[in-house]
Amino acid sequence: MLSSASVAGRKEGEGPLRRYFDRIEQDAYFGESSWEKAESAMLRETLCLACRKADTAPESLDFILAGDLLDQCAGSAFAMRGLGAPFIGLYGACSTMAEALGLAAVLIDVGAGQKVAAATSSHFCSAERQFRFPLEYGSLRSPVSQWTVTGSGALLLALDGPPPYITRVTFGRIVDRGVTDTSNMGAAMAPAAADTLLRHFAASGHGADYYDAVLTGDLGRTGSGILAELLGFEGVSLAGRHFDCGGLIYDAGRQKVNSGGSGCGCSASVLAGYVMELMRSGQWKRVLFAATGALMSPTTSRQGESIPGICHAVSFEAEAA
Amino acid sequence: MLSSASVAGRKEGEGPLRRYFDRIEQDAYFGESSWEKAESAMLRETLCLACRKADTAPESLDFILAGDLLDQCAGSAFAMRGLGAPFIGLYGACSTMAEALGLAAVLIDVGAGQKVAAATSSHFCSAERQFRFPLEYGSLRSPVSQWTVTGSGALLLALDGPPPYITRVTFGRIVDRGVTDTSNMGAAMAPAAADTLLRHFAASGHGADYYDAVLTGDLGRTGSGILAELLGFEGVSLAGRHFDCGGLIYDAGRQKVNSGGSGCGCSASVLAGYVMELMRSGQWKRVLFAATGALMSPTTSRQGESIPGICHAVSFEAEAA
Repeated sequence: MLSSASVAGRKEGEGPLRRYFDRIEQDAYFGESSWEKAESAMLRETLCLACRKADTAPESLDFILAGDLLDQCAGSAFAMRGLGAPFIGLYGACSTMAEALGLAAVLIDVGAGQKVAAATSSHFCSAERQFRFPLEYGSLRSPVSQWTVTGSGALLLALDGPPPYITRVTFGRIVDRGVTDTSNMGAAMAPAAADTLLRHFAASGHGADYYDAVLTGDLGRTGSGILAELLGFEGVSLAGRHFDCGGLIYDAGRQKVNSGGSGCGCSASVLAGYVMELMRSGQWKRVLFAATGALMSPTTSRQGESIPGICHAVSFEAEAA
Repeated sequence: MLSSASVAGRKEGEGPLRRYFDRIEQDAYFGESSWEKAESAMLRETLCLACRKADTAPESLDFILAGDLLDQCAGSAFAMRGLGAPFIGLYGACSTMAEALGLAAVLIDVGAGQKVAAATSSHFCSAERQFRFPLEYGSLRSPVSQWTVTGSGALLLALDGPPPYITRVTFGRIVDRGVTDTSNMGAAMAPAAADTLLRHFAASGHGADYYDAVLTGDLGRTGSGILAELLGFEGVSLAGRHFDCGGLIYDAGRQKVNSGGSGCGCSASVLAGYVMELMRSGQWKRVLFAATGALMSPTTSRQGESIPGICHAVSFEAEAA
């Protein structure tokens, strides 16, 4: 990995990870005229910041892989417009960062690119009005609900970059156990997380204890409990090494986020900031990053459909495999 | 390529390519209770049909790459739910088929998978009410507008499959020349098509005359004219070998589609049906498939933004490179 960068909003900047973000923006509009434009501006800035750290111009990137939660993934398309690098648009909901990193690693591995960026974002205000209610309603929130993070993360990968390295990628299957409560994303996504983690452990020959940390993003407290239970049925324990990005980013006691954080930008900003810092400092040497996504849309939920979940996993190691 | 399959709606089944679709469905609902569910059912059927032709169970696919136009790409997520194969969700608007094929080829080339599917869909009714107006309004349509195809296409790729082979992939850059007329997608996307075609020709060392056919999808008549003009400025002519999937799929004189067809399913169903048949029969030996997408959303257009275009190109050849 050449470099990483993260940008976060005010609420995230008041949380326990505040010193790991490259920038904390107090203005929810990021100087723009709408929340959607704000999200694009934030994501663009994050990518450009990662490029500057690696002394690389955005137009010299071989590929940018990105996606977000907005309809037609407009957040990332408008963020990357004009940067001049080939763009590969993804939709994996909150699993997007792992999906982008997995494909970026594949593109480098096959020799298609030397420098490839993976990036994603979410914005509380743009997500809230698109998926839930206009913010002006001041709706009450379910205790199992998660708070969409205003934040973004970008990683720049290169064939000859310094550690940590991406050593293995497991793309997930869609798992739908019939959860229809759109405020309970953790429950909808936990079965997919369990499926992908078990497949990753089986395919790699390494169990959970191989890793210093197994990060999910973002199951929240509710989903994390369900994941532990589901893995327990298979005799797998993540005890002591499981961290959920949605749990790390806020102070649950103080910040009124109910079950924790969510949104593509949650796991992306936690990975690009906190996790990469702990890996660079040597505190963590092997990390499994398993980002989870809920693949419903407001339309499918209104039509009575349950919520399909997905989880993609990427392992980072200080030493090449 | 192991196999291909295409399914189309009634209007497409009355067009000039009717004998190349595997199935033409007269019911716009495909037996479902909503147009969105219909689109998923159609896409799922198309993928399963491609699998059957290759005597392959969907769950034995190493990856399915898919996307569509619906918010949160719900069309493809719900189509692939329960199929049991790892799923990589994409958003490239109408360029999705080329994006999916490009990544599928990369995943096979790097050795990550033996059998990989690329699939996408669009549905006139679900697209119309999401992007434009409720169908019940019976809105008048601009003469430069395109008609969203109800159709889907799937290709199954394998390392050791029979010809045609994917020989080269060029992922496109986002190009935005400031077009804001959302009924004129062809004009918005043509500059991206020109950019990607020129980059593809330069990188491959082969000019347009190397190919029996250069297919864009979908610029319509308006966009195709602009593409010819833009390429002409660079001294490149596609004369005699340019076909636009949006032009091929309907009989423009008889079917009242204004500038032609559009939608992810347009280029995908034309490729999976007509183009693959002409390649299998030996009529075409080298085909460049350049699918174009418009990356705006209804929200960005309402906020006054112009329309970013993108084009990904994939070359198919009867002989391996």
